[in-house]
Amino acid sequence: MAQPEKISKKYGMSPGSLVYTGEKSGSEPVVITLIDYNADTLVEKSGISLADCQAYINRDSVSWIDISGVHNLEIIGQLGRMFALHPLLLEDVLNTEGRPKIDDYDDYLFMVLKMIDYQPDVQVIDHEHVCLIMRKGLVISLQEHEGDVFGPVRERIRKGKGRIRKSGADYLAYALMDIIVDHYFRVLEDLGGRIEEFQDAVLSDPEPSILEAVHGMKRQVIYIRKSVWPVREIAAALLRSESDLITKETQLYLRDVYDHTIQVVETVEMFREMLASVLDIYLSSVNNRMSEVMKVLTVIATIFIPLTFLAGVYGMNFEHMPELQWRLAYPAVWAVFIVAALGMTAWFKYRKWL
Amino acid sequence: MAQPEKISKKYGMSPGSLVYTGEKSGSEPVVITLIDYNADTLVEKSGISLADCQAYINRDSVSWIDISGVHNLEIIGQLGRMFALHPLLLEDVLNTEGRPKIDDYDDYLFMVLKMIDYQPDVQVIDHEHVCLIMRKGLVISLQEHEGDVFGPVRERIRKGKGRIRKSGADYLAYALMDIIVDHYFRVLEDLGGRIEEFQDAVLSDPEPSILEAVHGMKRQVIYIRKSVWPVREIAAALLRSESDLITKETQLYLRDVYDHTIQVVETVEMFREMLASVLDIYLSSVNNRMSEVMKVLTVIATIFIPLTFLAGVYGMNFEHMPELQWRLAYPAVWAVFIVAALGMTAWFKYRKWL
Amino acid sequence: MAQPEKISKKYGMSPGSLVYTGEKSGSEPVVITLIDYNADTLVEKSGISLADCQAYINRDSVSWIDISGVHNLEIIGQLGRMFALHPLLLEDVLNTEGRPKIDDYDDYLFMVLKMIDYQPDVQVIDHEHVCLIMRKGLVISLQEHEGDVFGPVRERIRKGKGRIRKSGADYLAYALMDIIVDHYFRVLEDLGGRIEEFQDAVLSDPEPSILEAVHGMKRQVIYIRKSVWPVREIAAALLRSESDLITKETQLYLRDVYDHTIQVVETVEMFREMLASVLDIYLSSVNNRMSEVMKVLTVIATIFIPLTFLAGVYGMNFEHMPELQWRLAYPAVWAVFIVAALGMTAWFKYRKWL
Amino acid sequence: MAQPEKISKKYGMSPGSLVYTGEKSGSEPVVITLIDYNADTLVEKSGISLADCQAYINRDSVSWIDISGVHNLEIIGQLGRMFALHPLLLEDVLNTEGRPKIDDYDDYLFMVLKMIDYQPDVQVIDHEHVCLIMRKGLVISLQEHEGDVFGPVRERIRKGKGRIRKSGADYLAYALMDIIVDHYFRVLEDLGGRIEEFQDAVLSDPEPSILEAVHGMKRQVIYIRKSVWPVREIAAALLRSESDLITKETQLYLRDVYDHTIQVVETVEMFREMLASVLDIYLSSVNNRMSEVMKVLTVIATIFIPLTFLAGVYGMNFEHMPELQWRLAYPAVWAVFIVAALGMTAWFKYRKWL
Amino acid sequence: MAQPEKISKKYGMSPGSLVYTGEKSGSEPVVITLIDYNADTLVEKSGISLADCQAYINRDSVSWIDISGVHNLEIIGQLGRMFALHPLLLEDVLNTEGRPKIDDYDDYLFMVLKMIDYQPDVQVIDHEHVCLIMRKGLVISLQEHEGDVFGPVRERIRKGKGRIRKSGADYLAYALMDIIVDHYFRVLEDLGGRIEEFQDAVLSDPEPSILEAVHGMKRQVIYIRKSVWPVREIAAALLRSESDLITKETQLYLRDVYDHTIQVVETVEMFREMLASVLDIYLSSVNNRMSEVMKVLTVIATIFIPLTFLAGVYGMNFEHMPELQWRLAYPAVWAVFIVAALGMTAWFKYRKWL
Repeated sequence: MAQPEKISKKYGMSPGSLVYTGEKSGSEPVVITLIDYNADTLVEKSGISLADCQAYINRDSVSWIDISGVHNLEIIGQLGRMFALHPLLLEDVLNTEGRPKIDDYDDYLFMVLKMIDYQPDVQVIDHEHVCLIMRKGLVISLQEHEGDVFGPVRERIRKGKGRIRKSGADYLAYALMDIIVDHYFRVLEDLGGRIEEFQDAVLSDPEPSILEAVHGMKRQVIYIRKSVWPVREIAAALLRSESDLITKETQLYLRDVYDHTIQVVETVEMFREMLASVLDIYLSSVNNRMSEVMKVLTVIATIFIPLTFLAGVYGMNFEHMPELQWRLAYPAVWAVFIVAALGMTAWFKYRKWL
Repeated sequence: MAQPEKISKKYGMSPGSLVYTGEKSGSEPVVITLIDYNADTLVEKSGISLADCQAYINRDSVSWIDISGVHNLEIIGQLGRMFALHPLLLEDVLNTEGRPKIDDYDDYLFMVLKMIDYQPDVQVIDHEHVCLIMRKGLVISLQEHEGDVFGPVRERIRKGKGRIRKSGADYLAYALMDIIVDHYFRVLEDLGGRIEEFQDAVLSDPEPSILEAVHGMKRQVIYIRKSVWPVREIAAALLRSESDLITKETQLYLRDVYDHTIQVVETVEMFREMLASVLDIYLSSVNNRMSEVMKVLTVIATIFIPLTFLAGVYGMNFEHMPELQWRLAYPAVWAVFIVAALGMTAWFKYRKWL
Repeated sequence: MAQPEKISKKYGMSPGSLVYTGEKSGSEPVVITLIDYNADTLVEKSGISLADCQAYINRDSVSWIDISGVHNLEIIGQLGRMFALHPLLLEDVLNTEGRPKIDDYDDYLFMVLKMIDYQPDVQVIDHEHVCLIMRKGLVISLQEHEGDVFGPVRERIRKGKGRIRKSGADYLAYALMDIIVDHYFRVLEDLGGRIEEFQDAVLSDPEPSILEAVHGMKRQVIYIRKSVWPVREIAAALLRSESDLITKETQLYLRDVYDHTIQVVETVEMFREMLASVLDIYLSSVNNRMSEVMKVLTVIATIFIPLTFLAGVYGMNFEHMPELQWRLAYPAVWAVFIVAALGMTAWFKYRKWL
Repeated sequence: MAQPEKISKKYGMSPGSLVYTGEKSGSEPVVITLIDYNADTLVEKSGISLADCQAYINRDSVSWIDISGVHNLEIIGQLGRMFALHPLLLEDVLNTEGRPKIDDYDDYLFMVLKMIDYQPDVQVIDHEHVCLIMRKGLVISLQEHEGDVFGPVRERIRKGKGRIRKSGADYLAYALMDIIVDHYFRVLEDLGGRIEEFQDAVLSDPEPSILEAVHGMKRQVIYIRKSVWPVREIAAALLRSESDLITKETQLYLRDVYDHTIQVVETVEMFREMLASVLDIYLSSVNNRMSEVMKVLTVIATIFIPLTFLAGVYGMNFEHMPELQWRLAYPAVWAVFIVAALGMTAWFKYRKWL
Repeated sequence: MAQPEKISKKYGMSPGSLVYTGEKSGSEPVVITLIDYNADTLVEKSGISLADCQAYINRDSVSWIDISGVHNLEIIGQLGRMFALHPLLLEDVLNTEGRPKIDDYDDYLFMVLKMIDYQPDVQVIDHEHVCLIMRKGLVISLQEHEGDVFGPVRERIRKGKGRIRKSGADYLAYALMDIIVDHYFRVLEDLGGRIEEFQDAVLSDPEPSILEAVHGMKRQVIYIRKSVWPVREIAAALLRSESDLITKETQLYLRDVYDHTIQVVETVEMFREMLASVLDIYLSSVNNRMSEVMKVLTVIATIFIPLTFLAGVYGMNFEHMPELQWRLAYPAVWAVFIVAALGMTAWFKYRKWL
């Protein structure tokens, strides 16, 4: 969700100015992790400095530098100088409100992605800005905070499972994209569960509070849609790309990411339809309830108002009311009351109001 | 319907990992069937192993291997090795939540389709993931369970009816696609009947339960739309394809499949419009009923409330109320009651409330 | 309207199988008519057999064979053999639920169209499946039943009016397409009249029955839209076509058909907007009526309930109620009644509820 | 607005038949005006015959022939013969329900436009069918009636203001298109004023009649949209055109017309949004009013119904009702009445119903 | 927002006529400012005449002429002559209702933009028409009034910060576009805050006035959308442009502007969804309130109407009513009253109406 208040922090700055638009978290340390591997060797270092990474780059291996915490402008600046990155790229790294995209800077590719996580206890979707810089033999990933969804990729590198140790940096970049998109399914699974809860709730007990919850959920699925839709374009751009940074083999895998993003979007669309159904059913339930209330009122009033009138008539104090003296007048009136009430009730039954 | 909970089973796996996302049905056996034919000969074997098929392949005939039950990873792995299939293809075979698509792996084509079936007794649409692998002289079909819609195609092969025995594997693949799409019409026929029932029900007796039923039906037609729409793209891709796996003659038939998918989608759109009409009429009926209820209440209350007031007046105990002593007061009051009631009724008739 | 129940009749048949999906009308005879003409000569024969036509074909004239009644599979089969037509074409002739389209079979063009007719007395749109086969010097038209909209074209041929006698088969095919599309305007004219009736009715006397009528009409205009929209594509395909069956001069006329189909679709869209307006106004009228009913109830109840209360107070039987003995109490109470009622009425007038 | 009843007048006629579809105005005379000019000379003649124009054509000047009243088929036929115009073109001139379009007949261009005018007193938009035929050195404009929006163009020609006298026929055709589109802004200005009146009215005094007015206005803006949208395509076609009838300089001006049509459409879209807002606010106002009415009823009924009950209790005639003899019973009951009424009122105030 | 009443001021004028369509502000002076710079030198002059600028143009530096106040036709005319600008360009400068666009006049580029500003105190968005003319070494910016958003750009030029002093006129033009788009985020930030206020207000206290406010806000975000959407096309056109006025380096920056416009549009779309949610929740709240009111009425009426009837019965004056003489009749009736009232209340509790 592009939050304009954050973006406007940069208002009036020279383009390429380094301004961090995320939440200030000055005390949070920046953690740099390096994984350097090829089919045979594997080096993994954590909590190092950028300078420490220098030795591993440009060797005949794939280096993956992960920087958690992009609020430290000094380190970002250093990164820019070390790898000759364009100022606009650095600006995009820091602009945590930017939308997913891919920029081709000839000798390296730059991708912006959104990592999302659902916290079921507070029912809030956490989103994190993730950037990938890829060039031959090197992938740099930049995230807002420590903690990510890349664990399984690290595991696969460590265990040497699958193709990852035998492939280049492009496959690593693909694997990171893929795991981010795969994680959307996890979040969708949780949201899907919530929506089914809504569906049950709206049928059994339509509370006004559900309206807010449904609209909140709608905003969240729209957010997911906005995060994943551009990833489709990124995958398509990489598929079409003539950059020699992407091997033909990796393109087969990117087609897979492309398919997955379409599936995420289709699921999101389905969720929106389901939420719209929930709203429809809710509104109709409220209507039905009201209709029921009105019927009760109408039945009671329609039965008793005429009877009360009749009772009122014989409560009048006229001197000359012959009925008042009749012996059987009182039971006769009760008979009228009962017959009238039963007749009305029968009529309401016939009209299916009861 | 992409069910995220199923897809997320694979979360974090290496791409190309073989994980079955369908319902575990470990005890269900995998049934492999081979039909090998050309214009003159026909061999049909059931319950064989993959190795048994080996002998028939690469002969001057069309082999159709059907594998019912894709949950057995061993057999799928064996299939992959036997025909040198790409790991991503095998992953797509197992990912029963994948959407319909076509992938061109140069020497073979891979198609994902959705087979649907409507069970009128429980009013549920059954869907099954079907994959077709086609190369020269060979079609492999993979389904989730035994039982399919391919019966008529088998029959045509056995009887040597039509062009099928004289044509190649591309025509067989077309025939399988065609029968899957044709089956959508059967399901639509059943759904169409249900929707007409809704239309009648909503006019004669608008029950709140119809709302749920209509929304459920809406989800089902959307599901069909999502299943068949990509088939259009598949047919179009095959029509445009320059692959020499597809003969020009078969392309004429694929144009037919293309037309049918459009017809399915148009019918689905019409069903959606009809369901929307049902909802509109339902909501309006509820409104009308309520309006009718209110009218009854209003008529009764408006007639009797003033009369009751008048009765109340002559029930007051003032010592000096000259009317009370009048001889004809009581009949006069009754006259007033009756005239007022008739007047009100006439006025309501005039306003068309009665 | 693709009626799935009809299409599914063919389920499982070999493609190209001849199955008639229309209503069985076994007893209805097939009527074959031949008109053979050039600028100078004119032969017209009716009730002949296909074999009788043979003599006129391939001569230096335009032959128009019209076959009314496509349910006779024998004749259709004979036609296929006589003119070497593709089995899929014959299938499309018989599939009366197929959508309009054009197929180019190199040496002949095949068009599917929908002829519609409105029967104002029963307010139902009749639709008929029409196919045109065109090759050099020959147009074959196939219809479901006798009775069509081609009369004016026949008349023009007979009278030698216009360009038709001097032009080739392509112009005849155009003339038939044109008259079918022109007939849509006639139907739209009738529908437009009905919609205006709806508009008047909904303002003067909003009946619940109008809702159904409007939704029924909506389905009919959607049906027209679905019938004519593909004709646009057919005309566009013929305009772009490089087939030498279409002369450049005829293409000018096809541009006209193209324009007309757009006009039909625009009119249909306008009708949909008008129908939506009718629904809006209907719903709002119902709402207004209800609101009016509620106002009457409220006004009556609000005036009399307090008065009834006051009457009730002086109907109490307390021994010590000093007012009861006052001489002027009774007229005073009446004064209170009248003042209160007038005050309330004035207040309602002020609030514009009366 | 394509009025099918008018178009169907031509039903069954040979294409290119001259049938006037506008309102018959047989007595209205056809007025032909000629303006012939170049940078130096200017001839202006009115009420002449077509033959009189002959002399000015093909000279080294721009001739503008304006024909007001296209219902005279003889004159239209004569025009066709004189300039060798295609029969379909003449048909389009007479078909006053045709939509705006451009047809390129190689040696001349043919444009159909719609001239609209708003009559504020009757709040109706007048529309008129206008055709332009342009070839080298000649523009023929054909309109339904006398009276048009071309006045300022004539003025500019007479005064020799601007580029018009120095430019060719293409610039004149552009100027006519431009003034027609410019006039849409005038009409939109009037409509905009009306919509603002609606907005004020709906807030101050929501009358049911506004619904009809809004829906009527909606149809009118849709009509404008339909008239101007194809003009965009016309301008685009002329911009792309390789016809040597259009100079490069004039194309710059056509870009301007193109921009204006987009602006008209955007304004129309905005008007539609505004009308939708008016409807929303109207419906919500009606709802609010009803809600208010209900509140009044509820408040009155809820306060007095319990009090009336209590008064009724002490109106009962039981022999043994000790309260009836108490000295202070009557004032005590009044105290109860007043406290209860005040309590209820306070509660309603607290619930914000009063 | 294209305001037709302003555009129609120009009605009938020759194209290219200089007519100012903005608000007449004859007394407001036109202020011309010149900034001329290169990497080393900087000249800044304010309140000069156009002629004074002449000296600085065509030197080996970038000149930025800013003209605040375009209502002075004389100065605009002088500008046109001085730089040989096309009359249509000048017309577009004066047409303050024109939409954003880019026109390529070969030797110079012309851009129309919209500068917006939000005044939170009056909750109105101010919009201003801004034109940029760019050629080699020269940028001319034209605005309606003094006061703009270009301050930060001026500051960057003065301080020599960033690339601006080292780059050409294309970079300056980019910087001006960029700051205008960046300012949209500021306005969106303010609007976003207002929308959140709406969301809170609608939940805590749904007032009818919110409806108007929400519809007003909707118009404003639509206006922003209309202002920024064409800027995307402008940036895209510049990116694709083969004009040698734009360097390859600047195109990288234009990609950034392009991304920002998409972000603005996405935010606007999100705002629209949020406003739609606010309306939904508002309408549902009104409904809920009404439903609550009805429930209270129904509960009170349903409890007391039957009791009042019973009291009425014992208020009748029949001579022969045995109950009246019973000793415990009165307490017994009270017992009935209380039991009935409690029973009803319990039933309502059970139905969850209380």
